[in-house]
Amino acid sequence: MKISARNKIKGKVEAVDSGMVMAKIKIKIENPGVITSIITKEAADDLGIKEGDSVIAIIKSTEVMVGKE
Amino acid sequence: MKISARNKIKGKVEAVDSGMVMAKIKIKIENPGVITSIITKEAADDLGIKEGDSVIAIIKSTEVMVGKE
Amino acid sequence: MKISARNKIKGKVEAVDSGMVMAKIKIKIENPGVITSIITKEAADDLGIKEGDSVIAIIKSTEVMVGKE
Amino acid sequence: MKISARNKIKGKVEAVDSGMVMAKIKIKIENPGVITSIITKEAADDLGIKEGDSVIAIIKSTEVMVGKE
Amino acid sequence: MKISARNKIKGKVEAVDSGMVMAKIKIKIENPGVITSIITKEAADDLGIKEGDSVIAIIKSTEVMVGKE
Amino acid sequence: MKISARNKIKGKVEAVDSGMVMAKIKIKIENPGVITSIITKEAADDLGIKEGDSVIAIIKSTEVMVGKE
Repeated sequence: MKISARNKIKGKVEAVDSGMVMAKIKIKIENPGVITSIITKEAADDLGIKEGDSVIAIIKSTEVMVGKE
Repeated sequence: MKISARNKIKGKVEAVDSGMVMAKIKIKIENPGVITSIITKEAADDLGIKEGDSVIAIIKSTEVMVGKE
Repeated sequence: MKISARNKIKGKVEAVDSGMVMAKIKIKIENPGVITSIITKEAADDLGIKEGDSVIAIIKSTEVMVGKE
Repeated sequence: MKISARNKIKGKVEAVDSGMVMAKIKIKIENPGVITSIITKEAADDLGIKEGDSVIAIIKSTEVMVGKE
Repeated sequence: MKISARNKIKGKVEAVDSGMVMAKIKIKIENPGVITSIITKEAADDLGIKEGDSVIAIIKSTEVMVGKE
Repeated sequence: MKISARNKIKGKVEAVDSGMVMAKIKIKIENPGVITSIITKEAADDLGIKEGDSVIAIIKSTEVMVGKE
């Protein structure tokens, strides 16, 4: 399946931190460092996300802001 | 000002494509390639975003999904 | 690829209405009617979205509100 | 009140799963199955959302992605 | 209908600026100034939004970031 | 740093309510009342957000809906 979301950044899961409903996933990407994702614990379990997994951070373009010094 | 958004990725503006209300900003980041951002034309004008600018792509963690092969 | 987004609703593209930067996609789903999606024109072109296509509306759970009479 | 959000899908609450801050609401819709919504526990309590309630899943169009096989 | 979105700020429409697909609505609120909303042109037309209208800006809590000097 | 997000509303932190992964921040703004923000507990800790802090609620325009009676 192709998805309309324009931003797909490959990385490796560095840490999974689960609460009761939500889970925080830290994804190490090649250069700029670490991407933080908040998804449901249900999704994290369903995809079996664990440290060391190769994953893709997916971000819809309308969610990306721009900052400038 | 510090901002709660966890994801701030440095890059350079590669292209600005403005419609009547919205503008698409292509941001070249160091390794994984290009990030696409959709912001208002008003914001693009207000920040004076143009090709070659050093900018930061800012993304709230709750907007980042995870994909896994 | 499996994706963390919890909501994937199958439907058929009913209409594509493109502006300069953004495109509006109307997706007919089986029962509750029509889902409206706003994506970049770039994504609509890249996926070749046209009337009659079988597509999936994908929505991250954190974007779904609840209304109650 | 009319709301600009284009997507309003009727359904019945199938399950409420509350954490400390957030709550996950499962909404059974007529045909495509179940919609997952993440809202604050505060909102879930304020609306008194419970299993069996008739509710409406509300989604802003800019939050809907499109996938295509 | 009650809606789970926690943030509802009353104001008056100050300007409507329509593109082909999207529309920008400027909403004057009582004290902090002006709120900018981007909705579909379809929604702006459907609600008949015009200068001087009393409206409510509605924002899901998960979309609000915090900045601190 | 200037940020493309159009909406920045000054206020004071009224309450911080942390779960395991997420935190709810109540921000008292001058006139319309209180804004609710959901951010990661990590961000709330990193910015040291506590009752009485002067903060800014930041909202991307594409996340603001419009309601009309």
